Amino acid sequence: MEEKEDNNFVYIGKKPVMSYVMAVITQFNKGEAEVIIKARGRSISTAVDVAEVSRQRFLKDVEVKGIVIATEEVQREDGTMRVSSIEITLGKM
Amino acid sequence: MEEKEDNNFVYIGKKPVMSYVMAVITQFNKGEAEVIIKARGRSISTAVDVAEVSRQRFLKDVEVKGIVIATEEVQREDGTMRVSSIEITLGKM
Repeated sequence: MEEKEDNNFVYIGKKPVMSYVMAVITQFNKGEAEVIIKARGRSISTAVDVAEVSRQRFLKDVEVKGIVIATEEVQREDGTMRVSSIEITLGKM
Repeated sequence: MEEKEDNNFVYIGKKPVMSYVMAVITQFNKGEAEVIIKARGRSISTAVDVAEVSRQRFLKDVEVKGIVIATEEVQREDGTMRVSSIEITLGKM
């Protein structure tokens, strides 16, 4: 999954944590009230790192508004695979 | 972090997902109303897998009651390191 940003979503891929932290900060600076960090599979750990670093080091007025976990079906060449996902919503206090 | 089980906690380490799913099922079968799945660092992704597989495939009457993320300080030989953590609480519906 490549990193992409649309609206207030930040999709986590294989870049360093700080790349995504910068994306989160940018979204809030654009005026978004909430930013949703989304990841699947092994990137879920990075998503938690991004949320924690963002709110503890850079955005003191932001808190975790909600966390949702789910299972998604991903298309592969050899069929569909089930993979876990997470959505962490950060918002202004 | 080694796997250990006390009370209604299941600590996620490096074993296969199904080992921890079995631990979750065992706790509920012992009569626990809630089971808390806890992980740090790279094991966070596995924790989400364990929660998802447990409730979707085995424990149809169990749902996610809450998810908390945090930053913990871990002692290392060369000082302390900050690491992200997750606690996923599963409970009977």
